[in-house]
Amino acid sequence: MSENGGEFSIIDRFFSSGEATGPWFCKGVGDDCAIIDIGASRIAVTIDMLAMGTHFLPDAAPEDVGFKALAVNLSDLAAAGAVPRAFFLSIGLPKKDDGWVSRFSRGLMELSRRSGCALLGGDTVRTPRIPKADENSPAVFSITAMGDLPKGMGLTRGGARPGDDIWVSGTLGDAYAALKYRWGHWAIAPKAFEQLRVRMDRPEPRNALGRLLLPIATAAIDVSDGFAQDLTHVLERSRVKARVDWDSVPRSEALRSLPEEQQKEASLSGGDDYELVFTAPPSRRREIFEAGIASDTLVTRVGTILPLESSDSALTIYDATGGAVALKSEGFDHFA
Amino acid sequence: MSENGGEFSIIDRFFSSGEATGPWFCKGVGDDCAIIDIGASRIAVTIDMLAMGTHFLPDAAPEDVGFKALAVNLSDLAAAGAVPRAFFLSIGLPKKDDGWVSRFSRGLMELSRRSGCALLGGDTVRTPRIPKADENSPAVFSITAMGDLPKGMGLTRGGARPGDDIWVSGTLGDAYAALKYRWGHWAIAPKAFEQLRVRMDRPEPRNALGRLLLPIATAAIDVSDGFAQDLTHVLERSRVKARVDWDSVPRSEALRSLPEEQQKEASLSGGDDYELVFTAPPSRRREIFEAGIASDTLVTRVGTILPLESSDSALTIYDATGGAVALKSEGFDHFA
Repeated sequence: MSENGGEFSIIDRFFSSGEATGPWFCKGVGDDCAIIDIGASRIAVTIDMLAMGTHFLPDAAPEDVGFKALAVNLSDLAAAGAVPRAFFLSIGLPKKDDGWVSRFSRGLMELSRRSGCALLGGDTVRTPRIPKADENSPAVFSITAMGDLPKGMGLTRGGARPGDDIWVSGTLGDAYAALKYRWGHWAIAPKAFEQLRVRMDRPEPRNALGRLLLPIATAAIDVSDGFAQDLTHVLERSRVKARVDWDSVPRSEALRSLPEEQQKEASLSGGDDYELVFTAPPSRRREIFEAGIASDTLVTRVGTILPLESSDSALTIYDATGGAVALKSEGFDHFA
Repeated sequence: MSENGGEFSIIDRFFSSGEATGPWFCKGVGDDCAIIDIGASRIAVTIDMLAMGTHFLPDAAPEDVGFKALAVNLSDLAAAGAVPRAFFLSIGLPKKDDGWVSRFSRGLMELSRRSGCALLGGDTVRTPRIPKADENSPAVFSITAMGDLPKGMGLTRGGARPGDDIWVSGTLGDAYAALKYRWGHWAIAPKAFEQLRVRMDRPEPRNALGRLLLPIATAAIDVSDGFAQDLTHVLERSRVKARVDWDSVPRSEALRSLPEEQQKEASLSGGDDYELVFTAPPSRRREIFEAGIASDTLVTRVGTILPLESSDSALTIYDATGGAVALKSEGFDHFA
């Protein structure tokens, strides 16, 4: 679930309160996942809607669209530390097109098989055509993904504590830089673009890492709206502040080939990364590096959680000169 | 989950086989709900996408749209016999509009409270505007609803046996007749239309009846695509045939004010009813009438399940003269 403050404020009011009890105990409402206890079992559930023209370029390869539609949901499960088990798919199509859906399904099922997340239900409906998109493209998809959690466990945005380290998986900013190139805004060398493009089209959800972090991390979120905005969600839920060191923010070689201002915009505010940002006490550093190795995922320490008491802003990012980095925007907002 | 043969045949190929095993045992894939065993607990899960202009008239009241968006999902849970517990909502909006969403939420949450089905997660994204709709209307919604089932239980389309009675809840055809009036195709007296309109705008999911039928019925489905088409889904899954008596098909007083040909079209082929069609042995008739009384729901016996052996078509509907009723269409298909 990507929950932009601006977008979801209306519906947010109607959510069951943060910890609902009843036949099904639930926590994490308004988080990446809802975490639900059903009898003696615990599951994590997330829903995401994706639209051609908003989340995908109109000419995106159907295989990539299918892969990414599932990947962004698995990424929400990764942020909760859940093991993907099942997903449900709705497709809105402007008209019936077996060719497009068949290619879409190929990418989708590639990730389904690889992640052990089975397609258990679905629905296809007619929706209006998007003016500028390929007339055969589906307009919109909605996926609900469900995963297993051990009894009593599950990462949320709410547990970061002063003194905790702030960590990031993989590298940030690649997908956004690829999009800026596609839009014609940034000049990027063909070879660098090719590396960035894969990160935009085929994001790798970090479920193996998330599962290993379950007994280690104090809070976690996946980066969909931009590092600064998503980390701020953690800070708000955890009632803490943060200091981040810009030089530590992990960036790919391809992104480092761009001017530093573009690197900052892409990696701090860009979004569409589907990397994990998580917090943990300094005493767990060795275990975190081991989890990174075991899951074949780069993990980088980028800052520190601070107490809320002082009066400056919740998140400050410092560069090597000790100056604060100005953020380009407040992250991705579909309605901005 | 509404699974029109024509619409979903492509994705259908990719569903996990009817009974998937693994950490989560699952049956009912391709049914109204997936029925999943998680540890010692059993749940039913359904997903439905609804689009303005396809499932809702462009000028539909936002409160009604919200109510019905949840109702059609609860109806799928009713067909499985599940008790609604939680739902997840995605909204696709052409632009931010707090007023519309606030009114939508009012109708949605009215049914949420009444049914004990809590909103546990959601997502709002920007989607393209529908050409002819109110420019502030959301384009598309997707709801995933989850319910409780007792261990080892759960109604599917697959259990009807020769000799079983065929039953219908409530009355059929009202919503379709209201739509035909709104489209200007049928002339209906204002008072009759008012009764039909409520059935189109505020369908009552039959969860109380469905739960009571759980130990009684052999198969069940909810009528979304039209009685004939949805009963045919049961026949196909159960590998049986059926004989239905047209005069027994339950119709409201308002529908009976229309010409008989229109009554036939609306109640047999119309769809959008969200009533249950279910089967049970004749020995259970008394229990079924008691379940109807206990849930304050009309239940009507309309026909009989037959063995597959004979060569005529799977479903035959006879009128009082003993002649077969010709079906107007094969039910609702978004792409027809």
